[in-house]
Amino acid sequence: MTSRRSWWGWGYENAPEEPAGSAALQAALARLLQLPVGEPVTPPRLEDLNLRPSRIDLPADLRAFCSHETYDRAAHCYGKSYRDVVRALHGEVGNPPDFVAYPRDESQIRALMAFAEANAVALVPYGGGTSVVGGVEPTTSSQYQGVVTVDLRHLDRLLEVDARSHSARVQAGMLGPALEAGLGRHGFTLRHFPQSFECSSVGGWIATRAGGHFATGYTHIDDHVQAIRMLTPAGVHETRRVPSSGAGPSPDRLWLGSEGTLGVITEAWLRVQPVPAFRSAATVRFTDAESAIDAVRAIAQSGLRPANCRLLSPLEAGLAGVGDGGDAVLLLGLESHDHPLDAAMARVLDLCARLDGRSDADNPTGGTSKAGQLWRRLFTRAPYERDRLVARGLLVETYESAVTWSGFEAFHRRVMDAAEAAVTTACGRGLVSWRIAYAYPDGPAPYYTVVAPARRHHELEQWTAIKAAVSDAMLEAGGTITHHHAVGRVHRAWYAREQSGVFLSALRSAKQAVDPHWILNPGVLVSREPDQRPGFVPTVNASIQGRSS
Amino acid sequence: MTSRRSWWGWGYENAPEEPAGSAALQAALARLLQLPVGEPVTPPRLEDLNLRPSRIDLPADLRAFCSHETYDRAAHCYGKSYRDVVRALHGEVGNPPDFVAYPRDESQIRALMAFAEANAVALVPYGGGTSVVGGVEPTTSSQYQGVVTVDLRHLDRLLEVDARSHSARVQAGMLGPALEAGLGRHGFTLRHFPQSFECSSVGGWIATRAGGHFATGYTHIDDHVQAIRMLTPAGVHETRRVPSSGAGPSPDRLWLGSEGTLGVITEAWLRVQPVPAFRSAATVRFTDAESAIDAVRAIAQSGLRPANCRLLSPLEAGLAGVGDGGDAVLLLGLESHDHPLDAAMARVLDLCARLDGRSDADNPTGGTSKAGQLWRRLFTRAPYERDRLVARGLLVETYESAVTWSGFEAFHRRVMDAAEAAVTTACGRGLVSWRIAYAYPDGPAPYYTVVAPARRHHELEQWTAIKAAVSDAMLEAGGTITHHHAVGRVHRAWYAREQSGVFLSALRSAKQAVDPHWILNPGVLVSREPDQRPGFVPTVNASIQGRSS
Repeated sequence: MTSRRSWWGWGYENAPEEPAGSAALQAALARLLQLPVGEPVTPPRLEDLNLRPSRIDLPADLRAFCSHETYDRAAHCYGKSYRDVVRALHGEVGNPPDFVAYPRDESQIRALMAFAEANAVALVPYGGGTSVVGGVEPTTSSQYQGVVTVDLRHLDRLLEVDARSHSARVQAGMLGPALEAGLGRHGFTLRHFPQSFECSSVGGWIATRAGGHFATGYTHIDDHVQAIRMLTPAGVHETRRVPSSGAGPSPDRLWLGSEGTLGVITEAWLRVQPVPAFRSAATVRFTDAESAIDAVRAIAQSGLRPANCRLLSPLEAGLAGVGDGGDAVLLLGLESHDHPLDAAMARVLDLCARLDGRSDADNPTGGTSKAGQLWRRLFTRAPYERDRLVARGLLVETYESAVTWSGFEAFHRRVMDAAEAAVTTACGRGLVSWRIAYAYPDGPAPYYTVVAPARRHHELEQWTAIKAAVSDAMLEAGGTITHHHAVGRVHRAWYAREQSGVFLSALRSAKQAVDPHWILNPGVLVSREPDQRPGFVPTVNASIQGRSS
Repeated sequence: MTSRRSWWGWGYENAPEEPAGSAALQAALARLLQLPVGEPVTPPRLEDLNLRPSRIDLPADLRAFCSHETYDRAAHCYGKSYRDVVRALHGEVGNPPDFVAYPRDESQIRALMAFAEANAVALVPYGGGTSVVGGVEPTTSSQYQGVVTVDLRHLDRLLEVDARSHSARVQAGMLGPALEAGLGRHGFTLRHFPQSFECSSVGGWIATRAGGHFATGYTHIDDHVQAIRMLTPAGVHETRRVPSSGAGPSPDRLWLGSEGTLGVITEAWLRVQPVPAFRSAATVRFTDAESAIDAVRAIAQSGLRPANCRLLSPLEAGLAGVGDGGDAVLLLGLESHDHPLDAAMARVLDLCARLDGRSDADNPTGGTSKAGQLWRRLFTRAPYERDRLVARGLLVETYESAVTWSGFEAFHRRVMDAAEAAVTTACGRGLVSWRIAYAYPDGPAPYYTVVAPARRHHELEQWTAIKAAVSDAMLEAGGTITHHHAVGRVHRAWYAREQSGVFLSALRSAKQAVDPHWILNPGVLVSREPDQRPGFVPTVNASIQGRSS
């Protein structure tokens, strides 16, 4: 697609027409929620937005690659979460960046940093802009004269492939599809397919520790990063390109997950792999969800490391069109470029059968299972579907975590209870489905989806109440506040509760060393002052309305 | 063994008598080096050491668990590297710790920290004391009134096994054999077998990012750490116990590799696994070493992840008694607790056969190959053998790194050339052997061993010249200064060249935040002042003689 990105919602302006499946999904949800299928609201026209004038001016050398056009500023107000889309749909774009920079090389980024430091301007590093945690939202702090969003879309090249070492040097602004196309020409793939794949960037994946395609084994982008090149106000950081090292704490692991607060990632060496030549897929159905969860645990602890091992709750499977609404459905896939997988798949299915899992009769001997194909299609289409549902007045949000196997049962019950109670209180009624998105030998990463009727202009209150209830439950039941959605602004309060004060103090000091004027993405991840702990009261209400830093 | 540890060399005082193999190895080396087999020198008697009196006094509550006996202080002067053993053999123990603390709980460690901060005393966290990089050597800096080594041997309990989540909570001072015995009673194993296994501790492994048993896949302890509890002068750090998280930069990865400079690790949750029920082992011989290296690469890139995949150079294989001195020998092993490995081993051997590797006729269908057993015996016995050779006047040292596959050929040539030239210059003659200890899809971790005649009382000069030449070559040819031996004092100069100034500045700031008085292991890893870079001149000569901080 060569069109420009939607300024308010997911994807591109000339996105494909609403497919037949969308109407079916909308009808199914309307039936379950006992609601009429509403007519969609339409987003405001750009020319009606009437943005606040830019508060700063830029010298000519910077203006050469910066824009303050309404489209650019409006499109960089938010990420792509529910609260972002709903605010945009209502035309609430009160805090746009003053400029959007589109640098074409590192010297332009360095010039921006020098300007920002000298003029108390905040910079927001911006890759694909698909944050769902407020990670690319400009600060509202009065400590800054203005905000420039640094959109890295022009750093979009595959620079080098080292076929012998299964690695590739990539510019940070490259989006998923272009990366895979480029690697494919060399016979390689990163096989990192987050749900945001279509619109998210290599640099964004690294900055947010994205969770990718593999459901077991090396799930996060972290393990696929060989070296990072990053610009900071204190200078250039570049790690040595080695397969492994024990020389002190891993430098890359400090930048991984730094969410634009420690520097602007410009390049990375990634570990790639040959395109799989062998695939084996299967779908297994379980009457009893607990048995299904036990099967996922057995598989995760077997050492067989399936690439796909996603367990859908009965409701989730039903809505995705891969289940009857009664069975939990386990989608399995193994991949290798080197060797056949029949024995491994037989063992995986054996582990399922012992727990009364029933394999689909039409499971293929290779390739993708029918249910797997259907699921995959919905998975990649989901952000578009979400926008359609939001435009029709539904609140749609997802919550994800990770917890040990021994803690999972109580965790799951508590989170489901909290979500269902909060949805009922905030919205009158609603649906809560779940899946296990990733599975490790020591625990699963569960993922929850809430769909409920929104009250127009009260969506953020409703959203905040549910978010707080679910997040509190997750933390109190021993989980992490995020397995792969990152911290941003939305998770700040829970992040401060999850991490030790000692670590947060070390992180703040590291930030102070590389960004002494705190120009990089202020308000995200860490603040200059220690968060109040313990007994910290979540300030998400203020935070999501953009009033805090 | 219930005896106490040797104060000067590897292992325990009542170590087993010299086995028959030792004499054979000594004879083989003497023949190759054209030297007589010398009579061993004996270490000085403890009562002859005449240590410097303790420079500080401790309050009674601390004295209750601290010792300044000669044995304790002498045994904590050094780690267990060549330069440590040779100094001890010569009775050079001029800078012992003033006290050795043996805390039994965290409150005692906290009391030590408070005392140290108030009295400008340095603390050296000490696990098994097997550092080969000067990581447990007291500072000589005049900024400190004295030094207390904090030996964690009494924190030696397996606290909890979570069988459902395949994880175990372990105190940091627990040594390898006790850990494996304890886990074994629950049917689990960590399977982390560094060469130092007999005498090294869980906390030491974490603090130094130890490399363990697995030759491919999850090689470092890093991947087996689920959560860490650590005491710092700024307070207690404890990470949340979750299987995975994307909440900001990984806190554990900042402590992993911190080498006692950021805190004292007291406990960790480790990821363990059921004891393997299936094993498959093989030995493959290659006339052509380059083909053997290609085979290791093919295996590392196959996704088959053998637990053992170690390639020995012809000389190394010959000395270990597993080769004829002409062939490179590849030792292979696969392990699983869940499924048979015949197909996987067949594929591994197929990859070797394509590169003219010849499988041993007596390769077993399971268990350990004969050559593998022989190698394993020498591997675990090697530190004892090293001490015997040192006592007989040989210089024995190892060097290890990691580099990409595309860079390996030039790296290997350069390091071998540098080592051989430096050995010849420093010692007149010498042997250099190599092996590939670990193999990743993107590159190998090679390991070099030097054996040469030492000149009595000039050993450190000889050692320094060879160390500098090999380390320079490693860094200049694109490798890391250490894959799993850590940085300590010995690698400081090269570490500062390897890491970016931006990262080192972030690390120093993090240190400042958690240890504001710099009482923890000063002189190791980072210093308070930035190292001079670039064009940094290695100061290893001074450093190894204990004159720098």
